[in-house]
Amino acid sequence: MSDDEGTIIRKAQRADVSAIVAMLSDDFLGAKREYPADDPRYLEAFDRIDTDPSELLVVAESGGEPVGTLQLSWLPGLSRGGALRAQIEGVRVRSDQRGNRLGERLVRWAVDHARDEGAVLVQLTSDLKRTDAHRFYERLGFEHTHIGMKLALS
Amino acid sequence: MSDDEGTIIRKAQRADVSAIVAMLSDDFLGAKREYPADDPRYLEAFDRIDTDPSELLVVAESGGEPVGTLQLSWLPGLSRGGALRAQIEGVRVRSDQRGNRLGERLVRWAVDHARDEGAVLVQLTSDLKRTDAHRFYERLGFEHTHIGMKLALS
Repeated sequence: MSDDEGTIIRKAQRADVSAIVAMLSDDFLGAKREYPADDPRYLEAFDRIDTDPSELLVVAESGGEPVGTLQLSWLPGLSRGGALRAQIEGVRVRSDQRGNRLGERLVRWAVDHARDEGAVLVQLTSDLKRTDAHRFYERLGFEHTHIGMKLALS
Repeated sequence: MSDDEGTIIRKAQRADVSAIVAMLSDDFLGAKREYPADDPRYLEAFDRIDTDPSELLVVAESGGEPVGTLQLSWLPGLSRGGALRAQIEGVRVRSDQRGNRLGERLVRWAVDHARDEGAVLVQLTSDLKRTDAHRFYERLGFEHTHIGMKLALS
């Protein structure tokens, strides 16, 4: 959908799932909560995302391989004058690609795409432990306006 | 879909939009960012929500009138083993109904519904200024694990 400095940002395909899961797992929080990349739950979840018009899972591809990923969700709502929001989740960059602004290019791409699709707000949450990520998003213009809360269902 | 203590919780209909917008506006933050309830943008936004299978806008009805509202969004994803998440947005209770646990019943209904639909996590964000709401969600079992960030698009 976009390329910049040799990196292509495109919709994820089924064949990308194991590389994406590897990126989710190669993370100090993800390491504790992901399954092996070939667990069938990931392909089932991919199929649900892929057929849901409110979801867009993308990868950044470099040298023919996925090296970054994020997911965009469209959230129509009544508040703020019936504003369409875009939400970013699951931003990950492969460890050997960190430090080359790939994360920044991915997030900027998502923000531009959200604007093009008519969203008036982009929102995300970031784990309290990811203090580096908080500074990263602040540099990109995001403001810390909310607390993010979760309830695990058993 | 559920009733409890004389209150029915049901999917919102087009005829509920002005009452929902009145609740969004009758709020110390909403007062600054909403339009008049008859602004056509709200009906357009309602139609988008209503036809989106990933969104469920509900009202709590009492005495034949909407007196509370919230929106549930289904967010399929790869992370956490391909977990389906439910997200709660736009929780409001009409001002003359506050203090009677209607907000609690609405949120508990949403959590139960999320569990029934296979979600493994319910998430929400709450404005930093809504300190009462933070305590309310903590009482219901939500944990403050994330920061919530927003970027307004111009």
